[in-house]
Amino acid sequence: MDKIRKLLEKFPQIGDMMYGKDFLLTWSKQLKEIKAVSDTARILKEFHANNISARIFETGLAISVFRDKSTRTRYSFASACDLLGLQVNDLEESKSQIAHGETVRETANMLSYLTEVIGIRDDLYPGLGDQYQREVIKALDYGYDNGILPQRPCVINLQSDLDHPTQILADLSMLTDHFGGLDKLKGKRMAVTWAYSPSYGKPMSVPQGLIALLTRLGMKINLAYPPGYELADEIEETAKRNAEDSGGEFNIYGSMKKAFEQADIVYPKSWAPMSILQERKELFSSGDEKGLLKLEKTCLEQNAQYKNWECNQKMMKLTRNGNALYQHCLPADITGVNCRAGEVSKEMFDRYMKETYLQAGYKPFVIAAMILLAKVKNPQKALGKLVNLSAKRDYFRII
Amino acid sequence: MDKIRKLLEKFPQIGDMMYGKDFLLTWSKQLKEIKAVSDTARILKEFHANNISARIFETGLAISVFRDKSTRTRYSFASACDLLGLQVNDLEESKSQIAHGETVRETANMLSYLTEVIGIRDDLYPGLGDQYQREVIKALDYGYDNGILPQRPCVINLQSDLDHPTQILADLSMLTDHFGGLDKLKGKRMAVTWAYSPSYGKPMSVPQGLIALLTRLGMKINLAYPPGYELADEIEETAKRNAEDSGGEFNIYGSMKKAFEQADIVYPKSWAPMSILQERKELFSSGDEKGLLKLEKTCLEQNAQYKNWECNQKMMKLTRNGNALYQHCLPADITGVNCRAGEVSKEMFDRYMKETYLQAGYKPFVIAAMILLAKVKNPQKALGKLVNLSAKRDYFRII
Amino acid sequence: MDKIRKLLEKFPQIGDMMYGKDFLLTWSKQLKEIKAVSDTARILKEFHANNISARIFETGLAISVFRDKSTRTRYSFASACDLLGLQVNDLEESKSQIAHGETVRETANMLSYLTEVIGIRDDLYPGLGDQYQREVIKALDYGYDNGILPQRPCVINLQSDLDHPTQILADLSMLTDHFGGLDKLKGKRMAVTWAYSPSYGKPMSVPQGLIALLTRLGMKINLAYPPGYELADEIEETAKRNAEDSGGEFNIYGSMKKAFEQADIVYPKSWAPMSILQERKELFSSGDEKGLLKLEKTCLEQNAQYKNWECNQKMMKLTRNGNALYQHCLPADITGVNCRAGEVSKEMFDRYMKETYLQAGYKPFVIAAMILLAKVKNPQKALGKLVNLSAKRDYFRII
Repeated sequence: MDKIRKLLEKFPQIGDMMYGKDFLLTWSKQLKEIKAVSDTARILKEFHANNISARIFETGLAISVFRDKSTRTRYSFASACDLLGLQVNDLEESKSQIAHGETVRETANMLSYLTEVIGIRDDLYPGLGDQYQREVIKALDYGYDNGILPQRPCVINLQSDLDHPTQILADLSMLTDHFGGLDKLKGKRMAVTWAYSPSYGKPMSVPQGLIALLTRLGMKINLAYPPGYELADEIEETAKRNAEDSGGEFNIYGSMKKAFEQADIVYPKSWAPMSILQERKELFSSGDEKGLLKLEKTCLEQNAQYKNWECNQKMMKLTRNGNALYQHCLPADITGVNCRAGEVSKEMFDRYMKETYLQAGYKPFVIAAMILLAKVKNPQKALGKLVNLSAKRDYFRII
Repeated sequence: MDKIRKLLEKFPQIGDMMYGKDFLLTWSKQLKEIKAVSDTARILKEFHANNISARIFETGLAISVFRDKSTRTRYSFASACDLLGLQVNDLEESKSQIAHGETVRETANMLSYLTEVIGIRDDLYPGLGDQYQREVIKALDYGYDNGILPQRPCVINLQSDLDHPTQILADLSMLTDHFGGLDKLKGKRMAVTWAYSPSYGKPMSVPQGLIALLTRLGMKINLAYPPGYELADEIEETAKRNAEDSGGEFNIYGSMKKAFEQADIVYPKSWAPMSILQERKELFSSGDEKGLLKLEKTCLEQNAQYKNWECNQKMMKLTRNGNALYQHCLPADITGVNCRAGEVSKEMFDRYMKETYLQAGYKPFVIAAMILLAKVKNPQKALGKLVNLSAKRDYFRII
Repeated sequence: MDKIRKLLEKFPQIGDMMYGKDFLLTWSKQLKEIKAVSDTARILKEFHANNISARIFETGLAISVFRDKSTRTRYSFASACDLLGLQVNDLEESKSQIAHGETVRETANMLSYLTEVIGIRDDLYPGLGDQYQREVIKALDYGYDNGILPQRPCVINLQSDLDHPTQILADLSMLTDHFGGLDKLKGKRMAVTWAYSPSYGKPMSVPQGLIALLTRLGMKINLAYPPGYELADEIEETAKRNAEDSGGEFNIYGSMKKAFEQADIVYPKSWAPMSILQERKELFSSGDEKGLLKLEKTCLEQNAQYKNWECNQKMMKLTRNGNALYQHCLPADITGVNCRAGEVSKEMFDRYMKETYLQAGYKPFVIAAMILLAKVKNPQKALGKLVNLSAKRDYFRII
C-alpha cells in the first residue's frame, strides 16, 4: 500500500490531457503521458496484489477487433477490461466487409452506441494497419460529433504495422522494475536485433516501437539486422533524433555480435523485410494465392542465409558481464523446441524464462492503464479514491 | 432527468401483463405493451446519457442463438444484456443438432438452468423461424412447469421469417423522436417499398413488421413492390384491417414512384420473393447445392428487371416537400459504394447517414426494454427505484 | 432458507484442505471433500432459488479450454463462473500449438496473470487428457512459485480420458435428492452398463467415474459390457477394493439383463473399446486419416453386434419393482428419435425425461461449488456470510 501511495504522490502532472484520447503510437504521446501509463499500470498491479477492486464501470462494453491471430494480447485485453468492469465483445469480421471506407464508418458506429473502448490488432500489411485504426477513429468522431454516439469509445492499438504500444510499455515496465526505476534506464545499452526464424511475415512493429520509445529515455540502442531488413526510414530517423535530444545513442549495425557488445539488455527478434511485406500486401490485394506461396518460399530462403543470428551462450558472453537481461515479446522460436533453428537457443531461453514470463505479465495492466487514463478525467484523484474505498476484488480472500 | 420523470408519470398502465412473457411478434401485443417497450427504451437511453446504472441483475446469463449472420443485432443484444447486468453466452449450433423436436426441447432446457433471456435470430426460411422460436418456448414451458428450470427465461425474437420486432421498435423510436411524439405519427404517410439489390434471399420480416405495426397507429402506409414480391397474405390483410380500425390507410402499389408521392417517410428495402424463399427452403432441406446455386441465379435475374427501383434524388422529390425522412435497417446496398446498383444512391444515403445511424442506435435500448419488461413485475416502480438510487454506471465520470 | 442453514450446520469439517486445490479425479479426494462439493452445490442451488447472490468476486477471469465439442458443459461452466462473478474467456487453440511441453507451460502462464480458474475438457485420447491437465498444473505451479502469477488459478477437470467429476457429482446430487439423502444410497444397487450406439469413440470417463466413486458410498454396482469393452484395469480394481472397504458390492457382468436385475438405478451408456481408443490415438498422432476412417468402420461393426444392449421397457421390468431410476449424462442416442437403434427406447427416455433434465441441472452448481471451495479458505463461514448478507441476485424480483 505504501508503494501505491508513493506512486500516487509522484503521479505525472498530466491534467486531463489523456482523457477521451486514443492510444495508437507512443511517438504521438509526451513522455509524461508514457510515464502516466507506466505508473498507472504499476498501481493497478499493486491493486491486484492487494485485492483492491479497480472496477470503475458498473456496466459497459469493450469491442475487440483482431485482424491477426492472437492468444496473449486477446487475453490481456479481456483481463484488462474485466478488471475495470467492462464486458468484451469480439468482432469477427470477414475481410470483405471492410472493403470501403463507408463500411468502416458504419461498422464503427454500429458497434459503439454503448461502447467504452475498442481494441484493434491490424498488423499484417505495411501501410494498412495504422490507417485502418485512423479510419475507425474518424468514424467515431463523426458519430460523436453528430450526436449519434452518447460517448466516444477510445481506440487502443493492440498492434499495428507501425507500433505495438501495449507490448513496448509492458517491456518498459519490466525494465523499470528490473533496474529499479525509470530514471535508472538512462545510459543503459540495449541490443534490438533481428534474429533468424523459420517463419515469414512477422511484423516490424515491435523493433520499431522499441527504438522509437527507448531512445527518448536516454538509452543507448544498438539496432542490428542483415542487409534488406531495414526498419521504416522515418522511424529509424526518429530514433536517431530522439537519441540526440535525450543524450542517448542510436547505432545501426550489420551484425548481432556487434550489437550485443557490452549490452545491458538484448531483445533479439525476427521480422520480415519491408520489401516482402509490401509485396505480400499487393499479392493479397490481388488475391494471388500462388504468388503468396512463392513469396513465402523466397522469404524463407532469404531468412535462411542468416541462421547464425541466434541468441545463444556465445552471444550472451559479449554482453556486460555476460549477464544482460534477455527480453522477448513471446512466443519465441526456440532452437530444438518449436523449430530446428530459431531466434534463441533452448539453454538461453530457459535461463530467462522467468523474466520473459514476468515481462508478459505487465501487459494486462498496461492495457487497463491506457483505458483508465482515457476514461477518467483526473486519474490521480480517481485512483486515490479507489485506494480509500479499498473495495475487495475477491470478497472472501480474508476468510 | 425531467424527461425520465415525465415518461415515468405517463407510463402505460400495463400492470404485470408483460412479466414473464416472450416477445415474438408485435401483432400479438397490445398497443399499450408496444408503448411500454418504446417508453422503457427511451428511459433507459436517458439513464445511459445521465450515467444512471440500469443494472437489475447482480449475476445472470443470457443466451443468444444466431442462425443467420449478424453483426449489429448481435452487438445490440450483447450491449442490452450488459446494461442490465447479464453476461451473454453465444450458442454455436451446427444445423444438424436441431433436426428433431426432441433435441430442441433438450438443448433449450440444458441452456436455461440459470438463464434469464434467450435471443434468437432465425430468419432464413419461411415457415421455419417463428416455428423454431415457438418450439423453444414450448420446451421452456415444459422445463419450468416440471420444476426442471428454477426460472423461465424469456425468448426475444431477434428476427424471424415473420417479424423483426427489435428493428421495428427501433424504427418506431426514431419516428417518435423525429416527429415529436408517438401521437404525432397519426396521419403520417410512409412508403414501405421494395428496392433493387444485387443480392438474394433477404427476409421479408422488416417490411412485414413495419406494415403490421404502423397501420395500428393511424399511419398511412404505401406498400409497393414489383409483381411476384408480395408479402405474406395474412400480414397484408392484417395491415388492411388495422388501417380500417385505426383510421389510417393501407395502399398497395406496383410502383415505387406512386408510393413515394407525398410520403413523410420512405423505407425502401430489398427482399426476396416468397416463391424463391419457399423453393430455397425445399432445396436446403433436400441438400440440393446445385439447385440452390441455380435458384440464386434465377432470383438475381428476376431482381435485375427492377433496377430502377432505387431511392434517389429524383424519387425523393416526389415526397412531401421533397424532404421525407429516409429510413433503413442497415446495412444498405448503396449504388457505387458497395455495389454497382443498389437500393439507394450514394447521394441520398449520405444525406441521411446521420438519421439512419441514429435509428440503429435505439436497438440496444429496445432490446434492454423488452428484457426488463419481461423480468420485472412492476416496471414503473422498478425504473423509479433506479432513478432514486441513481447508482452510477461509470463511477468516475464526475472526476 | 432453513434448508441452507441445516446444510451449513452439518457442513463437512474440511478446514482449508480444498483451498487452492485443483479438482481432477474424485479418487484423489477424501469422501468429506466429495460431500463438501455436493453440499456446497445444494447450498448454491438454494441460493439461486431464494434469489441470494453467490457472487464472491467483484472482477476476475475464468479460462475454458475445450479440446472436444461441448454444449452443455460449456454452458454449465459459463453459468457457474457468472454465478460467482467471473467472466469466461474461451481459449480456441489449434492442436498444433500444444505439441511441446514448453508451449503448454508458456500458454498456461500467459493466460493466468489475472485468472482464478481454468476449466479443461480433454477426453478424446486415452492417456492424454489427464496428462495434459497435469502439465497445465505443473506450469501454473512453476509460474506461482516463481512469482510470475500473483495467484494460482485452480484447474477443474471438465472431462478427461479418466474421469468426468463434474458429471459424476451432478449424478450423485440427483441420487441424493431422489433417495432423500447421501446416507440413503448405501446398499442401493446401480447398473452401470454399456449400451449400443451407432457412433464411435465415446470416452470411458463417465462409467469409470461412476464405478470409482459410487463404490465408496456402500452402493452395489453392477457393471456390464460386451467382451472387448472393459474399462481401465486399475479403475475396475479400485472399484472392487472400494466396495470391499465400504461394504458395498462391485460385480462385472457380460449382460445388460443380468446387471439390471433388482437394480434401484440404471445408467446405460455407450463407450468405445479401449483398444479402439488406443489405436485412434496412434492413428491421430501419425496423421493417418485413411486409417481413422477404417477404424471408425471397424468400431461401428463391432458395436453393431450388440444392438440388443438397449434400455427399454422389457429391460426395465427386471429392475426393482420395474421402477428403477434411469440416469444418463445426455445427450442420449434414442431409438427412433436421433438414430434408428440406440442406447434407449423412446418410450423409456420419455418416461424419465424430467429426471434426466433435473440431473443435468445440478452441473452448473457442482462446478460453482468446486470453484468456490478452491477459492475460499473457510467455505462454511463464507457461505454463512453470504446468507447473512442476503444480497439479491435479481434486484427487482420482489417488485
